[in-house]
Amino acid sequence: MQPADSSFPLVEPRARLTPLSELQARLAGLQLALQRADLDAAIVVQNADLYYYAGTVQQAYLYVPAAGEATLFVRKSEERARAESALPAIVGLAAPKALPGLIEERYGGLPARLGLELDVLPVNTCRRLEKLLPGVELADVSGAILRQRAVKSAYEIELIERAAAVADEVCARIPGILRAGLTEAEFAGRVEAEARALGHQGVIRMRGFNQEMFYGQLLTGVSGTVATYLDTPLGGTGLSPAVAQGVSFKPIGRGEPIVFDFVPVVDGYTADFTRIFVVGSLPAELESAFAAALRVQAQVVSLARPGVTCRNLYEAAVAEAAAAGLAANFMGYGAGQVRFIGHGVGLELDELPVLAANDLALEPGMVFALEPKFVLRGLGAIGIENTWCVREHGLEALTHAPEKIYEVS
Amino acid sequence: MQPADSSFPLVEPRARLTPLSELQARLAGLQLALQRADLDAAIVVQNADLYYYAGTVQQAYLYVPAAGEATLFVRKSEERARAESALPAIVGLAAPKALPGLIEERYGGLPARLGLELDVLPVNTCRRLEKLLPGVELADVSGAILRQRAVKSAYEIELIERAAAVADEVCARIPGILRAGLTEAEFAGRVEAEARALGHQGVIRMRGFNQEMFYGQLLTGVSGTVATYLDTPLGGTGLSPAVAQGVSFKPIGRGEPIVFDFVPVVDGYTADFTRIFVVGSLPAELESAFAAALRVQAQVVSLARPGVTCRNLYEAAVAEAAAAGLAANFMGYGAGQVRFIGHGVGLELDELPVLAANDLALEPGMVFALEPKFVLRGLGAIGIENTWCVREHGLEALTHAPEKIYEVS
Repeated sequence: MQPADSSFPLVEPRARLTPLSELQARLAGLQLALQRADLDAAIVVQNADLYYYAGTVQQAYLYVPAAGEATLFVRKSEERARAESALPAIVGLAAPKALPGLIEERYGGLPARLGLELDVLPVNTCRRLEKLLPGVELADVSGAILRQRAVKSAYEIELIERAAAVADEVCARIPGILRAGLTEAEFAGRVEAEARALGHQGVIRMRGFNQEMFYGQLLTGVSGTVATYLDTPLGGTGLSPAVAQGVSFKPIGRGEPIVFDFVPVVDGYTADFTRIFVVGSLPAELESAFAAALRVQAQVVSLARPGVTCRNLYEAAVAEAAAAGLAANFMGYGAGQVRFIGHGVGLELDELPVLAANDLALEPGMVFALEPKFVLRGLGAIGIENTWCVREHGLEALTHAPEKIYEVS
Repeated sequence: MQPADSSFPLVEPRARLTPLSELQARLAGLQLALQRADLDAAIVVQNADLYYYAGTVQQAYLYVPAAGEATLFVRKSEERARAESALPAIVGLAAPKALPGLIEERYGGLPARLGLELDVLPVNTCRRLEKLLPGVELADVSGAILRQRAVKSAYEIELIERAAAVADEVCARIPGILRAGLTEAEFAGRVEAEARALGHQGVIRMRGFNQEMFYGQLLTGVSGTVATYLDTPLGGTGLSPAVAQGVSFKPIGRGEPIVFDFVPVVDGYTADFTRIFVVGSLPAELESAFAAALRVQAQVVSLARPGVTCRNLYEAAVAEAAAAGLAANFMGYGAGQVRFIGHGVGLELDELPVLAANDLALEPGMVFALEPKFVLRGLGAIGIENTWCVREHGLEALTHAPEKIYEVS
């Protein structure tokens, strides 16, 4: 290891470092889950989980025993891991094959039953670990990790609020950027440059296999009616079938709905947000669908509180959409319809809870995006999306931009 | 399935659709590999591989028998898959559990031995497939896929040239954007907006677990000396430890090297490219290291031709760096040093060949980025990177921007 270079910090001075107390509380939660599942330890390696439990994404294995101190074994860069992570036990790892010996040394032996993130760990990566740790029984610990991560601490909620503020600010700058005739790609690039200057980290993490997202989905007019490979209600043509989502080269026209579905990510944490813009004004049919989306949102918000299940909320939303006569257009159209109305957000964009027909009950500290949207084939997509935090009394909005159709002349 | 909406194409009109002849040749190559490995079929699901063999990334299972016609079973969106893919056999799939029945129906039974992309398929995803196909023996076919994809067709090389042209064009626009005092994030955002308007697809695909990249790494001064969790020679502080790479809030100063390491991606295909900028001029030590990087590149280019191994090239590069007295600074510094000088590019940024100490021999049609770089701790990083295609006679450059230190006043 080289000594730190004093002429430049290893950590961006404006960045937030995860406090030790946060890491300790999170590790304690994981240890409880390990004990309940009769596992002796877990090894955490995936970037989002690693950042959650260790405060760093340096190439590392985080070894978490069911009781006692966790150790971060770091391949690259150890120097940065020490600067980034508040964990006291950080050990350099020259090569993966040194891992079993180091575990034995620090913990008096290898675990009998070991938890891994089997929802994201590739088969071959898992097999290499299996070879490295012969005789160790491997189990899936990803469910417990995802359920724990669904409930955010006050510190995490504050970071999500900072991300949400970037969405609100970028939204406020759009009237200065938007004009008819720009292609979707040109418009998106200028909006994204604003986000970047405000500290958007660029990388958006999604947990689902093959899921990928670039700043969100800025869709105009009939672009918003094209379904996609993603688990999202909207899609967009994209620039090519290679990434068949998001902006295309279509020029922005007057009088068509511009869906600004934007995923701000700051210091690792994401919010999710949608507002509607238009150059000129929208046809009455779309304005009426927008009003229906606001009613769906109001209905869900009025019901949501700790103990209410995702199914309760999902069914209420579907009923409200049906009452507006828009059941067939809700959350997509035809084969493109998806069966959820929102999703947890945090270190990844696709977290728990999924607001769909499942029995997960809301808990204080859960944070999710609620996105009632309608697709009117031939016209475009329209709707609203805010990020909400579950409090004891109900939902608190973390995104605050006015809920209206933003008309630009 | 809904009928296509004639008011908007499902495919961006300016996009290239992969011709059937391309898909057929690629599938024939995979079938040869299946026969050699004594596999009865493969199921391809990962986005980059799916795009390679089917011309679409819609949620689908591509079933490739060892002989006979492949079938694309599509969950979402079938309508788009039909518009995007030239494959004749496209079948809607209501739910994954319908897959075995459809395979039996079309192929007269399930395969005894089935190849899967086990280098990227998550364990739980693989287990679900295993349950769906009881009694079917699963094997890894990813090695064969990666080796096949390493050798590009004339069509693919043309697409990589288009991506390379975006890098050249963005490079030409930088003098109009760069000025001292901008933060790295502000500067990057403006450069990225140019790329976006030129058709950069945003999403950059990497195959390695936990590897992620956002437009490349635009690093200034000592930012370029900070190592990273990635398998890359340079890193950068990043905006926070959550994504500990790339741009930070550091303001750009006069007289420091600005590493513009840029990853253009157009129509799915990527090139890779680095040029050096400076506001004012650079200290002699960095100019001399830049000259050494050009000599390393010239040395590798002079040796490279079909049949030469990656090891030959890697060792020649290391020797040339050592001759310049910069062995300790080559491809990183200290613990941050990586042991390769380049990597294949195509539908993913981290393809074969890896220009390192391995015995893979170059073949005509291979395309790779060669990136000799030096890290001078306390000063910054410097080097050159171009994308090259292996031809019968040697290497052909696909990136063409002048190789110099770009001085901006």
